[in-house]
Amino acid sequence: MTSSGTNAAPGGGSTAWHAAWELLLPAAAAPARQRGRMLQSALRESVRSGRLTAGTRLPSSRELAADLGVSRGLVTETYEQLTAEGYLRSGRGSGTWVGEAARAATAPRVHDLAPRPSGAVAEFLPGTPDLSLFPRTAWTAAHKRVLTGLPHRALGYPDPRGIPELRTALAGLLARRRGVVADPERIVVCSGVAQAMTLLGFALAERDLNVVGVEDPGSPEHGTLFASAGVRTVPLPLDAEGLATGPLRASAVRAVVTTPAHQFPSGIGYSADRRAQLLDWARSVDGLVIEDDYDGDFRYDRAPVGALQGLDPEHVAYTGSVSKSLAPGLRLGWLLAPERIRTAVVARKRTMDLGNPSLDQALLADFITSGAYDRQLRRCQRAYRERRDALVTALARHFPGARVSGIAAGLHIIVRLPERYGPEPVFLERAARAGVAVRPLTDYGTAAASRAGVTLVLGYAHVAPGDIGRGIRLLAEAAG
Amino acid sequence: MTSSGTNAAPGGGSTAWHAAWELLLPAAAAPARQRGRMLQSALRESVRSGRLTAGTRLPSSRELAADLGVSRGLVTETYEQLTAEGYLRSGRGSGTWVGEAARAATAPRVHDLAPRPSGAVAEFLPGTPDLSLFPRTAWTAAHKRVLTGLPHRALGYPDPRGIPELRTALAGLLARRRGVVADPERIVVCSGVAQAMTLLGFALAERDLNVVGVEDPGSPEHGTLFASAGVRTVPLPLDAEGLATGPLRASAVRAVVTTPAHQFPSGIGYSADRRAQLLDWARSVDGLVIEDDYDGDFRYDRAPVGALQGLDPEHVAYTGSVSKSLAPGLRLGWLLAPERIRTAVVARKRTMDLGNPSLDQALLADFITSGAYDRQLRRCQRAYRERRDALVTALARHFPGARVSGIAAGLHIIVRLPERYGPEPVFLERAARAGVAVRPLTDYGTAAASRAGVTLVLGYAHVAPGDIGRGIRLLAEAAG
Repeated sequence: MTSSGTNAAPGGGSTAWHAAWELLLPAAAAPARQRGRMLQSALRESVRSGRLTAGTRLPSSRELAADLGVSRGLVTETYEQLTAEGYLRSGRGSGTWVGEAARAATAPRVHDLAPRPSGAVAEFLPGTPDLSLFPRTAWTAAHKRVLTGLPHRALGYPDPRGIPELRTALAGLLARRRGVVADPERIVVCSGVAQAMTLLGFALAERDLNVVGVEDPGSPEHGTLFASAGVRTVPLPLDAEGLATGPLRASAVRAVVTTPAHQFPSGIGYSADRRAQLLDWARSVDGLVIEDDYDGDFRYDRAPVGALQGLDPEHVAYTGSVSKSLAPGLRLGWLLAPERIRTAVVARKRTMDLGNPSLDQALLADFITSGAYDRQLRRCQRAYRERRDALVTALARHFPGARVSGIAAGLHIIVRLPERYGPEPVFLERAARAGVAVRPLTDYGTAAASRAGVTLVLGYAHVAPGDIGRGIRLLAEAAG
Repeated sequence: MTSSGTNAAPGGGSTAWHAAWELLLPAAAAPARQRGRMLQSALRESVRSGRLTAGTRLPSSRELAADLGVSRGLVTETYEQLTAEGYLRSGRGSGTWVGEAARAATAPRVHDLAPRPSGAVAEFLPGTPDLSLFPRTAWTAAHKRVLTGLPHRALGYPDPRGIPELRTALAGLLARRRGVVADPERIVVCSGVAQAMTLLGFALAERDLNVVGVEDPGSPEHGTLFASAGVRTVPLPLDAEGLATGPLRASAVRAVVTTPAHQFPSGIGYSADRRAQLLDWARSVDGLVIEDDYDGDFRYDRAPVGALQGLDPEHVAYTGSVSKSLAPGLRLGWLLAPERIRTAVVARKRTMDLGNPSLDQALLADFITSGAYDRQLRRCQRAYRERRDALVTALARHFPGARVSGIAAGLHIIVRLPERYGPEPVFLERAARAGVAVRPLTDYGTAAASRAGVTLVLGYAHVAPGDIGRGIRLLAEAAG
């Protein structure tokens, strides 16, 4: 019995076999060199999808070969392959059946993980740089240069701390630009500030430090990151000079996350006194200040204030990344931790991922040592200063009486609107309806929204200068 | 008083100030545009190193400017900058002192993290592919192509599961080459198999599965990786067909790590029966088989046996990487986990690193869809088969009577030497003295070294064919 010109299923003749048979036909019609693979796939899929159920007897290889018009060897090989894999079972000379091993997959479910709103007419959410400033040409040139010169062994398993070339380049960069105590042995290359927090969380938990203070308002991510290491976060209030020292001392925490260069989101630059007080506190409790230098490179009114870590590297863990200067998608950052927790941090980095991709690291090292990274920082600085100015101008024009702050540095500012724009929930609803995405300061902390005024955290780095004025005008019109 | 032509320290005249003064001189002599930055660095370093101790009074800006022969504005700016950073303190019009804030760093300590022996004359350790086979030209070309076409938003924060383009490309690749049930929604891109194990460890611990069975002998890394997630590993013995089912059922574990395609390190390919029995076990305990497909792509005697995961994707978590096919330094792999733990895996991936670098992912996606990855696999397969043959030939020649096994697949084989070469410790010492790095099978498991025979795990993929014969001859000569 052959299938000559018909779709009728030969072989066992069962309904099950009939359904599978249709899947096998395209394989038989395929070019010779693909035929075997396609036949295997089709038969595998038939078992997996439940078209062929356990116990179904398959036609003999001779029979199926004739039916499909393919060589018998091809069918034998297919049966053998799928038997070895467990889809089929064969008795001693007595035929081939579908095995009991295969079980279908549960239908996939799409996870909703995309955080940014789409369809907004204007968008002033903080946290993203201008991705169009990424130096594509220079990066590709560096890639080619690096891959040409790289020794083979550099493609092997990396040092979990990072390749020496990058740690050396970063040590120079961070000492020069940020006043960090940064010898290469102190540096752990990591996947951005988020991973640095998780690494620190685990290292602290190992020392039974299970609570970490965080700035309030502050980055909403810290809670999740530390929780993943079993560490609880406690919000601690700010005053005009930075993290308030009274509540810090009263809190009994021994580690605290801070953003001294440009507090996120309030925009405060920590005062010199507060910097000193924070270190006094850390020494008195044998504790740790975690310095998140997320946008410390961008300062508009003066030279960037050096990192707190430079003052006491054994009581400050310093972390930063290229997420704001190059692109978050590179997932490249650094963590400089005090000696007493460094071994724990490196061990944890090792079990998390064995270390960052070595080619990416070599690329960034080349980019830094060639001077291209400094050029990029200057380019961003110019672009962001222009946008900041455009935003401040637009706010003055469209929201007369608004008070802006935190404008000396970073990629976002704070604006407190006059009372007539409140209450905040109403304002936010109007903004959303007009398609202008903004976030209120209250989103970042435990303080309740003010009944009267509206205070917004406006990110501007990713908005083209022309769109800034337009967006703020839209916002003002929406607010009525 | 000026320093004209002399090194005598002016200003306060104290010993402390004298020591610091020497550090400031090069700054004064520097080109104008670097002078300010260098002066700040030198003064910062003086404080940090303890040359200038807390309470030391600095010369007035007028005085220091004159002494150094620089503008007064430069000194004022330097003092202000370092005061803002906390290194210095200034009273109201009454001078500038070194502050109490700065504290020196503990001397760095070099961590010993390099695992590979250097200085060996010949090296047959398993685990590394031939890094010289990395397709540098094709990879650079893909980089250029990808970076030219990539939309800006692709440089932003990635989806923690991986970019859609790569998950789609991997789904096709894994279904086609390995018979994996691999829709893009099921895939989590990760930093190689090591991270996959850690991710799974955390996901299992969240379900109170705190013990995982591992093959004995097996990969020595698993213990460390699972321990980092708070999960204990229990060694389970093998028999000729794979993981022995009796001890598995008796162990009460509900999750087990396996290498069915080519057991590491014994080289056994799991039998069809054993594959089915493993799945039966997983279903009966509502458990999980973790399939580490670390070298499943390389099979020399027949088509690769399809992945176990294809038979029951809801009871098997499948993981693999490009570490053997491209380079471990890329840190790119994949994990396909059953629905019930996928959300936990993705959440953990997010807190570990927010996702793999997006550019690397786009590159691999391009590499796969363009067909370059298949070409690379074929190229490796040819090279490794040649080396395996060279190794088997050399062993037959220099160790007559040796029994090799596990040669059908992978990048290493097992060789059992005749009894006259034992005892093992003596043999290993002689090999080490001759500069031939080898590892015995006993290194990978709980079994005690046999008093009589010597059994070695020989990795050959990274050894040039010519060096294989030479190395084995050396080993034989050393053994006497």
